[in-house]
Amino acid sequence: MTQSDNDPKLGKFYGMGVGPGDPELMTVKAARLIKEVDYVFTPKASFKDNSMALQIVKDIVDEKKVIEQVYPMTMDKGELNTAWSTAAEEIAAKLKAGHNAAYLTIGDPFTFSTYIYLLQHLTKLIPEDNIETIPGVTSYNAAAGAGNFPIVESGMKLAVIPVSKDVEELRPILQTFDTIVLMKVAKKLDKVIELLEELGLAESSLFASYVGLENAVVTRDIISLKGSEKGYMSVIIVKKGYK
Amino acid sequence: MTQSDNDPKLGKFYGMGVGPGDPELMTVKAARLIKEVDYVFTPKASFKDNSMALQIVKDIVDEKKVIEQVYPMTMDKGELNTAWSTAAEEIAAKLKAGHNAAYLTIGDPFTFSTYIYLLQHLTKLIPEDNIETIPGVTSYNAAAGAGNFPIVESGMKLAVIPVSKDVEELRPILQTFDTIVLMKVAKKLDKVIELLEELGLAESSLFASYVGLENAVVTRDIISLKGSEKGYMSVIIVKKGYK
Repeated sequence: MTQSDNDPKLGKFYGMGVGPGDPELMTVKAARLIKEVDYVFTPKASFKDNSMALQIVKDIVDEKKVIEQVYPMTMDKGELNTAWSTAAEEIAAKLKAGHNAAYLTIGDPFTFSTYIYLLQHLTKLIPEDNIETIPGVTSYNAAAGAGNFPIVESGMKLAVIPVSKDVEELRPILQTFDTIVLMKVAKKLDKVIELLEELGLAESSLFASYVGLENAVVTRDIISLKGSEKGYMSVIIVKKGYK
Repeated sequence: MTQSDNDPKLGKFYGMGVGPGDPELMTVKAARLIKEVDYVFTPKASFKDNSMALQIVKDIVDEKKVIEQVYPMTMDKGELNTAWSTAAEEIAAKLKAGHNAAYLTIGDPFTFSTYIYLLQHLTKLIPEDNIETIPGVTSYNAAAGAGNFPIVESGMKLAVIPVSKDVEELRPILQTFDTIVLMKVAKKLDKVIELLEELGLAESSLFASYVGLENAVVTRDIISLKGSEKGYMSVIIVKKGYK
C-alpha cells in the first residue's frame, strides 16, 4: 500500500483493457500498473468459476490485492444497475482511503465492454481527473493478426456489428461496407454462414474464436464450420473481394 | 517460395503494431520482440525527417539494428508497387540469411496501414508460417481512452470511416449507426463539424488529435475547433445520444 490511512489524498483509478487473451497482448502500461496499484478489481459472472480477465494477468498480479466483483447473470436492468452501483462504491471506498486501483476488462474497455456501465456509476462518486482509461487490443484486431487477414486499407469503410437474433439485419451492411466484423455470432453461426454464402462472401471471410488461447480456432474455411456449434467467443471478418 | 517451412535457416518475420503514439501503449509482445530480433525495419515517408513508428520505440531499440525503408510520396500505383516490392525483397534477404526481423507500424498493422501492401509482396517470397502479425492498439481506441469516451456498448453498431473529399457520403452512415469513428479528417474538419451540427451530433462527439503525444488535443467541444485547421492526425468519435 503506497499511502497511509492518514493520508486523505484520493487514489487513482485505472480502467484497463488487458487485451484479447494472450497475456503478451496486454499493453506495457497495463502490465506496469497491475504491478504498481494497491488493488486489482476484476469482474466475474456469477455462473463462472473465475474471471477471464484475471486469467490473463495471473502470472503478473499479486493475488492478495485482487478483489473479484460478481455480477448477476440477468437481463433485469434494475438488478444490473444495483450491481454496478455496489461495485462502483466498493472501488470508490478504496480510492477514498488513498489507495490506487486497477479495474480489468478483456479486450478494449470502451468496445462492447460492461466497463462503460461501471464508469457511469464511478463518475458520480469520484472526480474524472482521478479516472484514467487505458485502451487495449480488441478481439477483432487480434483475430486479424492471428489469421494474417487484413481488416481495412486506406480509404475503406469498416463496420463492426454484433449479430442480433435477426441475421437479415446484416444484409444491407454486408452489401455497402468494404469490411464487416461480426461479433457475438454464437448460436447464429449457421445462419451467418448461409447469408455469407448467398452473398458470395464466404470465401472472403476469416473465422476466429478463443484467439490467443489454447483452444483457438482460426480458419478461412468458414463453410466447414456449419453445424459445428463453434460460434461462441468468435469473430468473423468479412473483407469484400479478398481471397 | 524457395525454402521449405521447416528450413531452420529461414528467420522469422514479425509485422507489429506499436500502438498509437505513447510507447507504453505498445504490447508486451511487441516490446519484447523489438529487443530480441536481429533487424528492425521501419517505414519512412520520403518527405519526413524520421519515422513516427521509430520515434515510439526509440527508448527500447538498439539503433544499430534499425533499417529505415523510404517510401515515395506518390499516388502512382506502379511506383508504389515497386517500392513495396523492393522493401519486401530487402526484408526477405535478411530472413533468408537466418535473421529474425520486426517491421513496425503505427497503431494496428491491419487497420488502415500500408503494412497490408508490404505483406502482399512478402508472402510471395517467404512461407506464411514464417510471418507473424502482432496486433496493436488503434488510434481510435486510444482516443476513446484519452477522452474517457465510450465507443460501443453491447448490441450497438460501430462504423469506422475515413472521410473522403465528399463529406456528404457520411450522412447516411451518421444516420444509421450508433457510433461512427471518423478517420483522415484533416482539411475536411470544418465541413465535418458543420454536418455534425446539422444532424444534432456535435455535442455527442469527441475530437482527439496526436493522442499520446506532447501536442495532443482531446476535447468534447468540437464546435470550438471550427477554423482551427487542427484536423491533421485526428479522430472524431460520434456516439449517438451521448452527452
